[in-house]
Amino acid sequence: MKQLFVIKIGGNVIDDAQKLQSFLKDFSTIDAPKILVHGGGKIATRIGEQLGIESKYIDGRRITDDATIDLVTMVYGGLVNKKIVAELQACNCNAIGLTGADGNIIPAKKRPLKNDIDYGWAGDIIGEKINIALLKTLLKQAVVPVFAPLTHTGTGKILNTNADTIAASLAVALSEAFDVRLIYCFEKKGVLENIADENSVIKQITQASFTELKAASILYLGILPKIENALSAIDAGVSTVLIGHADDLLQNCTDNMAGTLIL
Amino acid sequence: MKQLFVIKIGGNVIDDAQKLQSFLKDFSTIDAPKILVHGGGKIATRIGEQLGIESKYIDGRRITDDATIDLVTMVYGGLVNKKIVAELQACNCNAIGLTGADGNIIPAKKRPLKNDIDYGWAGDIIGEKINIALLKTLLKQAVVPVFAPLTHTGTGKILNTNADTIAASLAVALSEAFDVRLIYCFEKKGVLENIADENSVIKQITQASFTELKAASILYLGILPKIENALSAIDAGVSTVLIGHADDLLQNCTDNMAGTLIL
Repeated sequence: MKQLFVIKIGGNVIDDAQKLQSFLKDFSTIDAPKILVHGGGKIATRIGEQLGIESKYIDGRRITDDATIDLVTMVYGGLVNKKIVAELQACNCNAIGLTGADGNIIPAKKRPLKNDIDYGWAGDIIGEKINIALLKTLLKQAVVPVFAPLTHTGTGKILNTNADTIAASLAVALSEAFDVRLIYCFEKKGVLENIADENSVIKQITQASFTELKAASILYLGILPKIENALSAIDAGVSTVLIGHADDLLQNCTDNMAGTLIL
Repeated sequence: MKQLFVIKIGGNVIDDAQKLQSFLKDFSTIDAPKILVHGGGKIATRIGEQLGIESKYIDGRRITDDATIDLVTMVYGGLVNKKIVAELQACNCNAIGLTGADGNIIPAKKRPLKNDIDYGWAGDIIGEKINIALLKTLLKQAVVPVFAPLTHTGTGKILNTNADTIAASLAVALSEAFDVRLIYCFEKKGVLENIADENSVIKQITQASFTELKAASILYLGILPKIENALSAIDAGVSTVLIGHADDLLQNCTDNMAGTLIL
């Protein structure tokens, strides 16, 4: 099968114009079909504050109320997404900016109440309904889809959805047609054994070693959902999943990978 | 040639959630390839005020400074565009939201200084560079492109571009492949002979009659650029151009048109 790269880029790179530009330049040189999924960055919080929209959290999870879904629709789906598209175009990369609503590519459902907590307009992806036909058509024309972290209900509502999960879901859905390599790019060289030591990258993580690492409380909390997404992607048929530094993107597209390989 | 509808919907419908929903419901039932181009509405001005971004005008023309291009990118390209896409999806219309940067569909250049006035990030479309290949592919898959009034330089900058002009430019470019009907939808039944009389619709306007109407100062100022766009589209090969009420959309898609026909 033809190789396809699904690349996730996170908030801290998006918040830094120079880092972002350098990352996008690297991304544009990947000589294979590719998809970019971007997170939100802190800009939505900043614009939200200026607009008097309060960020609400319960147990550390964001509540997406009416004002917040409008905010992230305009910031993630408009400002961040279209700036990335315009910059990629300047690198001769024929990008097209999308949300999960566009072309009905990523149908989702509003997250049900959990312990009586209403997370608002947060979306859980309906994996089996992802529409890969349009993505295949775009990729065939050498068009590069760039996804904002938004999905939709199919009944007229946009939903806020985690970008790591979108990347994993797209990678899984496209695995029936491509040999997919999913790469999570962030600000560390990989999953670290010691958060204080930048070079303590764990080379490989399996479901079994993940359980051990968790039991030994070696991993910092923030990395757990990313590893869980990565393991579920491998489990569902994605060929290769990596967690690595945004600066190592091009090396992580070769056989001589840096970062943490998920097996 | 196969028929294609290019429909422009303006600000006052976009600002009214109920009117917009009713319009989109009508639009979704047009049983032919179709493209929607939307204007901005007043919401960008309102959000801009909340963000402390002042609307600047010189001689009645908006100046798009750095803060304003970010504002319209997020509001037009994100909030307005994606809400329309989600609502069309709810009507079983497989919409995809685009700006001119996406797929490099509408390259433009920053408007040059005029009389020493710098209009900022305002874009003039480079008509001969419009990329219809991707649009043709989307239309063939029954995907419905929905354009926000934004273009790009190709060097990384988004540009603010008049939605009427985008609609005309797309209609002209697609005329080589389709029998295009361009319909400008707004809040009046057509071009009025008497602005105070809603039913004084001028049935047809030609270049010659337009010159006469202007000389006689019969037309109100706001309608002139729309008629100029319409006449230039006819001149450049668009089969049919109409100016009519948003409520008359479906009638204006038939042979029994309401509104003002541009010849």
